[in-house]
Amino acid sequence: MFELRRFLTLSVLAAVLFGVTAAPAAGDPAEDIKYRQMVMNSIGSHIGAIVAVIKGKVPYGAHIVGHAQAMQAASRMLDDIFPPGSAVGLTRAKPDIWQQPEKFKAVLKAFQDASINLVQAAESGDMGAIGEALGVVGKSCGGCHKPFRKPKE
Amino acid sequence: MFELRRFLTLSVLAAVLFGVTAAPAAGDPAEDIKYRQMVMNSIGSHIGAIVAVIKGKVPYGAHIVGHAQAMQAASRMLDDIFPPGSAVGLTRAKPDIWQQPEKFKAVLKAFQDASINLVQAAESGDMGAIGEALGVVGKSCGGCHKPFRKPKE
Repeated sequence: MFELRRFLTLSVLAAVLFGVTAAPAAGDPAEDIKYRQMVMNSIGSHIGAIVAVIKGKVPYGAHIVGHAQAMQAASRMLDDIFPPGSAVGLTRAKPDIWQQPEKFKAVLKAFQDASINLVQAAESGDMGAIGEALGVVGKSCGGCHKPFRKPKE
Repeated sequence: MFELRRFLTLSVLAAVLFGVTAAPAAGDPAEDIKYRQMVMNSIGSHIGAIVAVIKGKVPYGAHIVGHAQAMQAASRMLDDIFPPGSAVGLTRAKPDIWQQPEKFKAVLKAFQDASINLVQAAESGDMGAIGEALGVVGKSCGGCHKPFRKPKE
């Protein structure tokens, strides 16, 4: 799990005390990759949580909207988190992402649109609509992961 | 990573076609634990992402609000996801959670309040305020993890 303590005693305090604001060490691929994986993990966790509710594994129907909104917000971040050069290192991102930018953009948009649709379904509370919207989200995950993500080693 | 495909062909389709809605198999501790871990992982990912931005590791200041809101929404779910009986199995949740419910409730509330505060700071865009609010969030994580979570084995 993420260890916050060590960071807090250093960086946040420094930021608070000395007014240090985010000045990115321009394009460190390792940091880009770590951040990307946190965003993708959050998306995976929220979708997984919705799936668990829809499958009836847990009784938290009231959580679906929150998960869907969180996922939708994260889906918009995908536009930013594949900067050029971030294919180097511990990542399954394929070079095709940067070689076929139009296709990549299109599959991202499909996921983003599916996420908006899921939020709307979640807000309606209609479990059938949520299930249907989740199906479209799932397809859109694959729509990017299949062409643009390397298989696990 | 979370595998959506297999699920989709079964459960969501079933839900869509047959109108099956969430009918929880009342209190399966393994499912409770999996769900709880997804919620906690989402929180960890969102906080970790904010930390990366604040530390200047990545230049995505515009993402902070989304992560903070997602984390805040998830923080509210904590009230529900420690049902009695869910200390059994692959979990680091201590029995003390259920033995000291008032204390547990209080430390959850501290985290929930800190999360609301972080959202407000994030919405203000003031990096100093965000750093400070993040410090309080970090303390509130420890405020629960120290007394109520077993160390890693």
